[in-house]
Amino acid sequence: MKICIVGTGNMGRTLGVKFALAGYEVFFGARDIAQAEGAVALCGGAARSGGNDEAVAFGDIVVWGVRAMPGEVLRDPSLLDGKVVVDMNNGPVPADFHYPPILEAFAERLAKAAPGARVVKAFNTMAQEIFEHDPVILRSHGVSVFLAGDDEEAKAAVGALAEELGFNAIDAGALERAAMLETQADFIRFMIGGMGRGVFATLNLTQLPAVATQRLGGRQPTKLT
Amino acid sequence: MKICIVGTGNMGRTLGVKFALAGYEVFFGARDIAQAEGAVALCGGAARSGGNDEAVAFGDIVVWGVRAMPGEVLRDPSLLDGKVVVDMNNGPVPADFHYPPILEAFAERLAKAAPGARVVKAFNTMAQEIFEHDPVILRSHGVSVFLAGDDEEAKAAVGALAEELGFNAIDAGALERAAMLETQADFIRFMIGGMGRGVFATLNLTQLPAVATQRLGGRQPTKLT
Repeated sequence: MKICIVGTGNMGRTLGVKFALAGYEVFFGARDIAQAEGAVALCGGAARSGGNDEAVAFGDIVVWGVRAMPGEVLRDPSLLDGKVVVDMNNGPVPADFHYPPILEAFAERLAKAAPGARVVKAFNTMAQEIFEHDPVILRSHGVSVFLAGDDEEAKAAVGALAEELGFNAIDAGALERAAMLETQADFIRFMIGGMGRGVFATLNLTQLPAVATQRLGGRQPTKLT
Repeated sequence: MKICIVGTGNMGRTLGVKFALAGYEVFFGARDIAQAEGAVALCGGAARSGGNDEAVAFGDIVVWGVRAMPGEVLRDPSLLDGKVVVDMNNGPVPADFHYPPILEAFAERLAKAAPGARVVKAFNTMAQEIFEHDPVILRSHGVSVFLAGDDEEAKAAVGALAEELGFNAIDAGALERAAMLETQADFIRFMIGGMGRGVFATLNLTQLPAVATQRLGGRQPTKLT
């Protein structure tokens, strides 16, 4: 399976290096070739680099690491036809972390702009610094990667990649749930910055053991007052 | 410290029983006295019950366990003057968990309706079944209780209560952040119901160890494309 990164920024670069170190063929794409070459160097040279069009032609899985629509960074959005496109983007950080409600997810806009792409929202709920951790650390902390997408096969493929890096892949349903995941990322970015928890903080799904709920009365039909 | 529950439903009853079993003086208030008496029975009789007005007169800390404004359940909202009011409410569950964006938090409406109350948003991000767990289980899973409020002393008091029950109290800032916590609860309720994770699932703050981020390139100034 070949993986490419479109728009090699901090998030995409870090994830791409992880994939390369895990043995995948990785192609870093960027408008600024030096930026892509820098990522290749971090892989000890065991990756390729070039423009974004070239990257997309190479990859079966396209990590969309840029907060822009396909028409802005590719020759033609149809280059994404049939590709699994992993959208890891979130909106900009507003003043004092006062995030507006998300009425349409970035991932949904991406899917509309490239209707032949198999878009999966994933990897958007933590800072790049957490990507850097070894699988054993990620597994011991149960770090969640939430996935939303309409193509079940594509979603399963991205989930398997996440698991391989040590994450706990959580299927959050169809692409229409991407707005929830982006909102979740906004809360996490508020935690990181606004609450001062730092870049190694995230929110993970925890499953507690089931207890007999009758002990404290269980669920009872209750009136409003 | 005396604690009362206004509107003894599933969430309020369970939390109230936990406080009673932890040794606090607890008063269960409800319009339907039988409902409040049922909660007292779950405490082995070591609690009191009565109407909501009577409950509020008793408590220093008022657990607001009812999705209604003070004027709907109390003789007068001014009964809440000076009280620490713990708002654990979330909005109703919409069809197929398609939650609308929260433009004004329930907690903020509560604070407006009872301007003398010291409102703290808390305990709204998990199902009542998790409240039932023993402190040792909650601590071992790092179960987060997020708090938002404008009165620092009130928020600290509620945080200390949460810690006593075994939760990890997380200060999420001023009351204006309550909408984020209610949105967070919507995501958790989607997880519980829409994703089929069940009532023992929640989202917790996890702090991963800090690693040297230079290893994979650190944070670099990047261009958009």
